[in-house]
Amino acid sequence: MEKPWEGRFSEKTDEFVERFTQSVSFDRRLALEDIRQSIAHVKTLQKAGVLTQDEAKAIVEGLNKIAEEIEKGGFEFKESLEDVHMNIEFALAERIGQVGKKLHTGRSRNDQVATDERLHIKGQILEILELLKGLRKALVKLAQNTVDVIVPSYTHLQKAQPIRLAHYFLAYREMFLCDEERFMLAYKMADRSPLGSGAVAGVDFPLDRFFTAHELGFNRVLRNSIQATADRDYILDVLYACASTGMHLSRLAEDLILWSSEEFGFVELPDRLCTGSSIMPQKKNPDVLELIRGKTGRLYGNLMSLLTTLKGLPMAYNRDLQEDKEPLFDSLDTIKACIKAMTLVLDGLTIKADRMQQQAGGFSLMTDLANYLVQKGLPFREAHSVAGKITSYLLKEGKKPEELTLEELKSFSSLYEEDALKLLDPRVSADRRNTYGGTSKEQVQKQVEIAIREEGL
Amino acid sequence: MEKPWEGRFSEKTDEFVERFTQSVSFDRRLALEDIRQSIAHVKTLQKAGVLTQDEAKAIVEGLNKIAEEIEKGGFEFKESLEDVHMNIEFALAERIGQVGKKLHTGRSRNDQVATDERLHIKGQILEILELLKGLRKALVKLAQNTVDVIVPSYTHLQKAQPIRLAHYFLAYREMFLCDEERFMLAYKMADRSPLGSGAVAGVDFPLDRFFTAHELGFNRVLRNSIQATADRDYILDVLYACASTGMHLSRLAEDLILWSSEEFGFVELPDRLCTGSSIMPQKKNPDVLELIRGKTGRLYGNLMSLLTTLKGLPMAYNRDLQEDKEPLFDSLDTIKACIKAMTLVLDGLTIKADRMQQQAGGFSLMTDLANYLVQKGLPFREAHSVAGKITSYLLKEGKKPEELTLEELKSFSSLYEEDALKLLDPRVSADRRNTYGGTSKEQVQKQVEIAIREEGL
Amino acid sequence: MEKPWEGRFSEKTDEFVERFTQSVSFDRRLALEDIRQSIAHVKTLQKAGVLTQDEAKAIVEGLNKIAEEIEKGGFEFKESLEDVHMNIEFALAERIGQVGKKLHTGRSRNDQVATDERLHIKGQILEILELLKGLRKALVKLAQNTVDVIVPSYTHLQKAQPIRLAHYFLAYREMFLCDEERFMLAYKMADRSPLGSGAVAGVDFPLDRFFTAHELGFNRVLRNSIQATADRDYILDVLYACASTGMHLSRLAEDLILWSSEEFGFVELPDRLCTGSSIMPQKKNPDVLELIRGKTGRLYGNLMSLLTTLKGLPMAYNRDLQEDKEPLFDSLDTIKACIKAMTLVLDGLTIKADRMQQQAGGFSLMTDLANYLVQKGLPFREAHSVAGKITSYLLKEGKKPEELTLEELKSFSSLYEEDALKLLDPRVSADRRNTYGGTSKEQVQKQVEIAIREEGL
Amino acid sequence: MEKPWEGRFSEKTDEFVERFTQSVSFDRRLALEDIRQSIAHVKTLQKAGVLTQDEAKAIVEGLNKIAEEIEKGGFEFKESLEDVHMNIEFALAERIGQVGKKLHTGRSRNDQVATDERLHIKGQILEILELLKGLRKALVKLAQNTVDVIVPSYTHLQKAQPIRLAHYFLAYREMFLCDEERFMLAYKMADRSPLGSGAVAGVDFPLDRFFTAHELGFNRVLRNSIQATADRDYILDVLYACASTGMHLSRLAEDLILWSSEEFGFVELPDRLCTGSSIMPQKKNPDVLELIRGKTGRLYGNLMSLLTTLKGLPMAYNRDLQEDKEPLFDSLDTIKACIKAMTLVLDGLTIKADRMQQQAGGFSLMTDLANYLVQKGLPFREAHSVAGKITSYLLKEGKKPEELTLEELKSFSSLYEEDALKLLDPRVSADRRNTYGGTSKEQVQKQVEIAIREEGL
Repeated sequence: MEKPWEGRFSEKTDEFVERFTQSVSFDRRLALEDIRQSIAHVKTLQKAGVLTQDEAKAIVEGLNKIAEEIEKGGFEFKESLEDVHMNIEFALAERIGQVGKKLHTGRSRNDQVATDERLHIKGQILEILELLKGLRKALVKLAQNTVDVIVPSYTHLQKAQPIRLAHYFLAYREMFLCDEERFMLAYKMADRSPLGSGAVAGVDFPLDRFFTAHELGFNRVLRNSIQATADRDYILDVLYACASTGMHLSRLAEDLILWSSEEFGFVELPDRLCTGSSIMPQKKNPDVLELIRGKTGRLYGNLMSLLTTLKGLPMAYNRDLQEDKEPLFDSLDTIKACIKAMTLVLDGLTIKADRMQQQAGGFSLMTDLANYLVQKGLPFREAHSVAGKITSYLLKEGKKPEELTLEELKSFSSLYEEDALKLLDPRVSADRRNTYGGTSKEQVQKQVEIAIREEGL
Repeated sequence: MEKPWEGRFSEKTDEFVERFTQSVSFDRRLALEDIRQSIAHVKTLQKAGVLTQDEAKAIVEGLNKIAEEIEKGGFEFKESLEDVHMNIEFALAERIGQVGKKLHTGRSRNDQVATDERLHIKGQILEILELLKGLRKALVKLAQNTVDVIVPSYTHLQKAQPIRLAHYFLAYREMFLCDEERFMLAYKMADRSPLGSGAVAGVDFPLDRFFTAHELGFNRVLRNSIQATADRDYILDVLYACASTGMHLSRLAEDLILWSSEEFGFVELPDRLCTGSSIMPQKKNPDVLELIRGKTGRLYGNLMSLLTTLKGLPMAYNRDLQEDKEPLFDSLDTIKACIKAMTLVLDGLTIKADRMQQQAGGFSLMTDLANYLVQKGLPFREAHSVAGKITSYLLKEGKKPEELTLEELKSFSSLYEEDALKLLDPRVSADRRNTYGGTSKEQVQKQVEIAIREEGL
Repeated sequence: MEKPWEGRFSEKTDEFVERFTQSVSFDRRLALEDIRQSIAHVKTLQKAGVLTQDEAKAIVEGLNKIAEEIEKGGFEFKESLEDVHMNIEFALAERIGQVGKKLHTGRSRNDQVATDERLHIKGQILEILELLKGLRKALVKLAQNTVDVIVPSYTHLQKAQPIRLAHYFLAYREMFLCDEERFMLAYKMADRSPLGSGAVAGVDFPLDRFFTAHELGFNRVLRNSIQATADRDYILDVLYACASTGMHLSRLAEDLILWSSEEFGFVELPDRLCTGSSIMPQKKNPDVLELIRGKTGRLYGNLMSLLTTLKGLPMAYNRDLQEDKEPLFDSLDTIKACIKAMTLVLDGLTIKADRMQQQAGGFSLMTDLANYLVQKGLPFREAHSVAGKITSYLLKEGKKPEELTLEELKSFSSLYEEDALKLLDPRVSADRRNTYGGTSKEQVQKQVEIAIREEGL
Repeated sequence: MEKPWEGRFSEKTDEFVERFTQSVSFDRRLALEDIRQSIAHVKTLQKAGVLTQDEAKAIVEGLNKIAEEIEKGGFEFKESLEDVHMNIEFALAERIGQVGKKLHTGRSRNDQVATDERLHIKGQILEILELLKGLRKALVKLAQNTVDVIVPSYTHLQKAQPIRLAHYFLAYREMFLCDEERFMLAYKMADRSPLGSGAVAGVDFPLDRFFTAHELGFNRVLRNSIQATADRDYILDVLYACASTGMHLSRLAEDLILWSSEEFGFVELPDRLCTGSSIMPQKKNPDVLELIRGKTGRLYGNLMSLLTTLKGLPMAYNRDLQEDKEPLFDSLDTIKACIKAMTLVLDGLTIKADRMQQQAGGFSLMTDLANYLVQKGLPFREAHSVAGKITSYLLKEGKKPEELTLEELKSFSSLYEEDALKLLDPRVSADRRNTYGGTSKEQVQKQVEIAIREEGL
């Protein structure tokens, strides 16, 4: 196969080198974006008088035909043609002859690949935003149904204070809203057109880059041709947003794995989302959640991969940059699959409200016993110390807080009165935390309503 | 030293554990933010009727005094008091007595530390944005003076096409503008108030969280107490912005190290910014640039560090989160120092314009010889092939492109005419790349003017 | 302060640059190793006839005095003198005059710092190996006492099969034995002498490098001066061994955090190793374990940090390499503290054997019911399917496996006979797994004995 | 498709979940290892009396047939059958009927997959060691031919001292020898048999694990079934060795990229190993080297990926571990390709000895001028200062060191005499560095001979 650059070369490319340097085995994923940009480029060349109307028409038709072949799966990509760009350009010349060789005028693979990637990222982020919205909706639906479910909250994996389960689900919604902002920054960064930057220095045909950008739906035109072809920070932004989202998913997965253990017994996953053991017949394993958690590794790894590749790279384009694509594609596919998988799990989750509520009381109520004293005027630090001593006493006696009598309370502080006993109810405790963003019914109900409105449920 | 939580405990904390778990050796950096938030908290408590005006006044005065001591360096932090919060609270009680013990009412260290961090980050990012602006100004100043300096551009570290040096400096300015957007996202994410979230579930005193947020200058109030205390994604955003900026700095550093080698000889650093060798008397080393490049490692490492810590962490607060501070502080200090150092280098840089220009011609002009043929109607791919053959010929003959005669050109393509010889001038070549964002004088001049305006120079 | 290399320079070093490039604030940690190597170097210079006996004696005495000052804390390190090497050399000249200026003959800071680091690493690894042994001993002691404690094993955090608790502790011992091999490789790699390599190319004095190496206790002499001064892979080996050990510690920490939750209730930590909450009086948090788990982040981050710094660095020494020390020191200190902390936790652990045993039965026994059928000739896959159906039946009926009657069993397979009911005992189940390395009493007892012997208990 | 574990389940697996959890699309790479271990397992089952001789024979024959199909590419792997193990087991039952269902007796996928991986790693490392040897041979061959080529060494990318080029190549050989030790550790760690560990707790059939291990060529038997099935540190060791090797390759690549720039002009790559530009006809780019350097990213990323996945994972097997394979396979393939590519480059390298030698003199000789004075009795620090002043003088006068007259030298120190002028020759300078491992002809020659012997050239 003839190389597009072989004029200057006196030897055929080594076969191993051909395989080692090719990228078409993975950058073919950009084929449709490549054609889309080529069409916009052709129009720009025509507008600049570099191509005649007929030439442009012939090329566009040829490209559309190739796009069709690709979509139908009938297009054969060849490694010897290096990359997706050369494969398409070569096929074009095969199909429409000489005029096809004019396509690459005023363009380099350096601005071409950056354009393809940016187009691809934009499309993928829109998909991800949609999936993220679906995930948040699943959380909000769970929250709607669990405002009145009391569950212990945990800090240090030790019971902290009783909360409404809806409050918990809304916490994750907030985290995924933050991730949305990260993806939106990545979108904004990608939404800038490099086309017309040439190999590094711009192009010596009078191309209207704003026209091209408009044709391709880019919001801005990159204003420096070196940056446009030599940087990949816009991919880092995607990888980072994926890593952050993956981190949040890994935490939710961990929680649900814990909660579906026999020991916690707070939730149950439907059989259709679990798998079994090849050896232990009783096993019903939360594999989906474990894989979500485990896949955080590759999301972090991909970010680290590109960060490493970019470190200390001199200007401008270097072939090292070809290593940007596989981590990008892998992170995109991984995060989409993980969000989908988590949404499926949330939609299928059985909440075991009784078990949760039964676990929600006990020592989680001790802060209330302290704050009672504060409201009677005791400095918090001393009130905390009194409640700590009550805890010690109960542990030694093997009693539960709910079994405390007024006499016992009074033996620790004379400030305790009859109404203190009412505190020893997890639901009362939750409702006492009535600050904005807290876990009282009033606050949680308010946040659920906001969430419903914001997610358009 | 009495622990604030020892009521429930029957043994003294093990001494090694005390040291292992303390954070005051590094979180003391947050002392002033901690006091600032405590003052806002006291006002909120007063507004809520939890503290009397006199109590509030006494506490605020006490806190202000402690702040003064800290600023003067006279405050002694004790590891046995675990963290900055307890150190200050303990000191307060020592100074103003019982009433000091009321400060921690309606607050947990969990919402407290998140508030401190967010305040700190906001202040630090403002500093960084200022430094980044300074760096960009240094680049623009260099660009102003180098519009007419022609230098080879490089791709694959092989000479590509001649560019104006200003064009190169402006490329980096664009990259640092992108980093600014990353820091601004991080700022936005940090600019939300967690205070009033308590340990995890909210607070059982009627605290007006919006008032507190307003007092502290937060733009928004976090609307879920679990998220507010259990997530650290706002720190990841900072670490990521630092990593991205560090990556760009590492590339600029690499370029300047290459350029200050004897072989390139494009720039010279002033003696005051270099160091020598303990053994080789002739050495003048670009250590500053090497360290900037090398420090990318810790910026990436810090990001990876917190990502790892957060992976798979169950809700809500876990002590693992204490590990967020050292990477944060280190990345903040590192990026500030590196930006400063790079600005200093740029301000002191000597441009060796003659050497650059002398290197800018030669084979970098071959694309122009190809595009000449395109303008005469030859398809680009064939034009490229002709120019490739001319290159081969020159290499074999040991001739420079500038030495080509019209006859020689014609022997490769009859389309070449007299005016083709004029192309063999790097300045002409640069000016031919006149697309928006290209390297022609017109375009570069335009971008320099935009940059001057945008940076307020 | 005069710089050792300022002969060639026409300007004073910029003050910011002085601070930015100094390393003495952290490399002072190598001071004693630096002196140790200087003494060996002096002896080598004397042996080579470069120094007279008197000169050598004077220098050695001077160095020993400085070592004493450093050990007593009375030595003042100055940032303006850049690094630990220059600080000591300068102090030497101050104390013993002209002859002190001869110390740096035939040596560069490039081979010097690599020697210091290698000496330091060797010492630190010996400490770590000792600590690792202590940790393994703690595990073996626990194992000795828990051979007869039956506990459920978990896969996917779902109960798998009953095991002996000792078996679990021995699993971690095996992992830490693997980490020992990693540290031993790191030791072997560090145990090679770079001294006598000069700045990069060797030394032009007839120094006997084997003599120096012998004096310093190095096992081998590095045989290429460029590699000796320009590589830091021996530090990577340490950082990797720390990361791997940290990973194992994080898993053990996770297990123990889970086990000390109220829901599992398998272990309890002593009060002296826990801390409380500033707001919730009942809390007793496994902070030590959480910090061990969280610190995995910095261990991974440090590895990534140096890997990044080294990526793409040209030969030979570059100042980037100065960035090797802080991650090294941090990982060494972190892993030592984490191993100590974990050992402390294991030594103080209370095992709640009753709770464990009570949880060990139930569905964990289903594999035994399947294998029973295999022993009666049914292919495993079909036996597995029968036991799976029994599980379904029990779940639907809300019955426990222990409540199964022979009739019920027979209704699933006629192969079941009276003796099948005996299988429904976790202790029996554990003992059935009698392959080498399995969890039967015989096997576990054997492994405990091997462990006792190997650890010298 | 029937699942092997569906007895207990009441719903079909969700289709998306099936795809999300399947691993056969990548673990099919382990198919031949899986069959190899199954054959060994069958023999062990027979030895234990669990299978009759006829049964064993039938299964082994069936497995061998499947192996043949796989090798010929005719075996169809199905995602619905989850993984490679189930695909093969299912195919076996299809081909040989009921008796095929006995294969999975006394085995779990948990010990099975660990065995496959360990077998695979062992084979792959042997390949890598062979490739590494080839790479080192290429370096030694280059060294053999370049003992007499003088080239400047660089520190800080500034010329340091003249060296023999062979010395440089041998430096990299030493580094790759270190990497060999890392791979050998990884081999040793992998060379331990997990088979017979079951799902987590061992097996309840009397399997002789030592017999199995012997059949499979394992050096040791893992002695704890939990560790054997739940840890993946042996894969970390591979990923780490790949990362370290990749780091060294990235440095060599960086050097050669620099050296093949026009500015350095030290080496030239053959056309067959380079590629061109789609737009710039003159370009001949060292893409292979750039890709080698860029691929360091994925090697680091893969290490970080698995480290992350393993962090904080509770005992024992969790599905997260399925995420170990893709980074492993990618790192293995990447490092093999990179080593091959680099070997190819080295074998095809043209050394431009004249250019090198011409650059080797000049200021690199100043250390010799200093050391001359030391040999005349001046303390090194003062001699260094004198040579520094000579450097300043030359720079100011625009003279080269080689142009210095005796008078000029004497004006800086009266110790200089006629013979000092002889130092101003790079070859003399190199030969003066005659310490072991230095760059003198004697030393380099000695090391070349050692290398030839060690590599069996």
